[in-house]
Amino acid sequence: MTVGELGERDVLARVLARLGDADASSVGPGDDCAVLRHAGDVVVTTDTMIEGPDFRLAWHDGFELGWKLAATNLSDVAAMGARPTALTVALAVPRETPVMLLERISEGLDAACRALAPGCGVVGGDLGRAPVVTAAVTALGDLEGRAPVLRSGAHSGDVIAYAGELGLAGLGLSLLFAEATDVDGTAHNRTLGQLWSEQPEALAAQLAPAPPIPLGVAAALAGATAMMDVSDSLSIDAERLSRASGVRLDLDPSLLEAGFGEQQGISVSVEAMLAGGEDHGLLATFPSGAELPAGFRAIGAVREAGAGGALLLDGEPRKARGWDPYTVRLPGSN
Amino acid sequence: MTVGELGERDVLARVLARLGDADASSVGPGDDCAVLRHAGDVVVTTDTMIEGPDFRLAWHDGFELGWKLAATNLSDVAAMGARPTALTVALAVPRETPVMLLERISEGLDAACRALAPGCGVVGGDLGRAPVVTAAVTALGDLEGRAPVLRSGAHSGDVIAYAGELGLAGLGLSLLFAEATDVDGTAHNRTLGQLWSEQPEALAAQLAPAPPIPLGVAAALAGATAMMDVSDSLSIDAERLSRASGVRLDLDPSLLEAGFGEQQGISVSVEAMLAGGEDHGLLATFPSGAELPAGFRAIGAVREAGAGGALLLDGEPRKARGWDPYTVRLPGSN
Repeated sequence: MTVGELGERDVLARVLARLGDADASSVGPGDDCAVLRHAGDVVVTTDTMIEGPDFRLAWHDGFELGWKLAATNLSDVAAMGARPTALTVALAVPRETPVMLLERISEGLDAACRALAPGCGVVGGDLGRAPVVTAAVTALGDLEGRAPVLRSGAHSGDVIAYAGELGLAGLGLSLLFAEATDVDGTAHNRTLGQLWSEQPEALAAQLAPAPPIPLGVAAALAGATAMMDVSDSLSIDAERLSRASGVRLDLDPSLLEAGFGEQQGISVSVEAMLAGGEDHGLLATFPSGAELPAGFRAIGAVREAGAGGALLLDGEPRKARGWDPYTVRLPGSN
Repeated sequence: MTVGELGERDVLARVLARLGDADASSVGPGDDCAVLRHAGDVVVTTDTMIEGPDFRLAWHDGFELGWKLAATNLSDVAAMGARPTALTVALAVPRETPVMLLERISEGLDAACRALAPGCGVVGGDLGRAPVVTAAVTALGDLEGRAPVLRSGAHSGDVIAYAGELGLAGLGLSLLFAEATDVDGTAHNRTLGQLWSEQPEALAAQLAPAPPIPLGVAAALAGATAMMDVSDSLSIDAERLSRASGVRLDLDPSLLEAGFGEQQGISVSVEAMLAGGEDHGLLATFPSGAELPAGFRAIGAVREAGAGGALLLDGEPRKARGWDPYTVRLPGSN
């Protein structure tokens, strides 16, 4: 059964049947808007995933796709020190898309909310038609009376810390490109099932990441001076935080190695940590001497602004590298 | 200059330069999330527009596209009785897209906010890559201590009222399909410029609608019992409101004719009003005897639920008709 055969109203009913409530919501899907009750200021973020540049149906099951959509947006909310309260989801797909794909996406969205940010749920959305599967998710969060933790608050002398996985998602993507049978029929070495059985941790990190969402609030309560979600790569995002704060972030390779050199039984090089991409962990700075919340590991120290760029590795200027959707051309994408 | 040549960071900078502040926003674009201060509950809605089924670059200038994106989402916020506070925008485009298109979209988004909902602005977003121009907008609004006006509150005996244009946007779309030179080179009768000079009101209603956003709050303050944005068609959306409220909406053709038979010098038939689509006016019900806010016109009365469907015209059951993105196949779309 395709979405074109079933029609918008019935597709929507099947999608909604798979979505649970959000605690903060007094009006859910079905009216012009959803209604949320918040205790403090509202944080809001939007992110899009599009078949081709952002995911491939040959690799992503619908459930994983929905999960990743939720996880990546929840992570942006966490990075402000806020508690996620609700998602809205705009899905547009070709007429020929099986209805089951949308059902599975909905199940993944709902499951990720329940697992990563209990109380948060999908409160509204939109269905439409597009040449490829296109999903835009907006996440809202409640600051509960706290000030937001911005990118711009790091001071010289602060400790740099990170929580989450680092480099595994990038490793997973490399494996998929190098090894997995692609949708275009390109000859490769392994089936997706073989890869899953051989490298489950790296594939899960890429296809269905589990960022440490509650640690956003924990970091805020512990006095984090700056924080952000690491999405493009640790080096790119550390450079962004440096520039926003008017400081330099000096990452310590020995701390990175000690904290993240082995994750889930996989050896990850410092280079892979710096350039990985799609980690969706939390990069935060804390006052020197602050007790880091459980889950955060120190990875360096904040220095005053100076010559040679905003990012340092072991005191030496370092060029950031990672992901740009317009300048990186993926095989098989437009 | 294309987005592929310029790269994400510089495209984003050009887009942001065209967006003004939102009054409620203490943190705007550039961090993981925007931050908003609200006086009451938060309303949130999402809508997508995709090149092909939802718009055509042969007909829509980027400015109009941005304007329409903002207007349609602001209208959903107004329909809850809320004041719009902020938009987030996810834009995904092909690498070959001129940067100017994104600049113009941004200008249109900003101009629509200023004209239709002063104080509201774009506070965040996302840029990505897609095979066709794809835009998802989320709008947030502040209920300022009021209860939301839902679709489900209409009672037998209430007056049905409408504010905004009715049928003009559908007329504009018909003209474009029938007359305008399309992007696929199909031979037609007129250039877009000729159509604009001959039928400016209908084309503007379709391409850059101006819904009566402040009347949403006005209706709430005047005691509206139910309200919704008319997006698919008056008949489809009146039927939805009927079902949500467990009543029947009985539209009066003589009131429709008196209120909307001539709009901006154009004669509009009751059939065109019922089936139009994309009107984005406000359909509301008020207690019998209530004084309608200026801008609303009475168009019928609410009846108790009964046999023969949820929608009546002059007391007779009436089948709704209008727009379904999956079951309606447009020429030239996928």
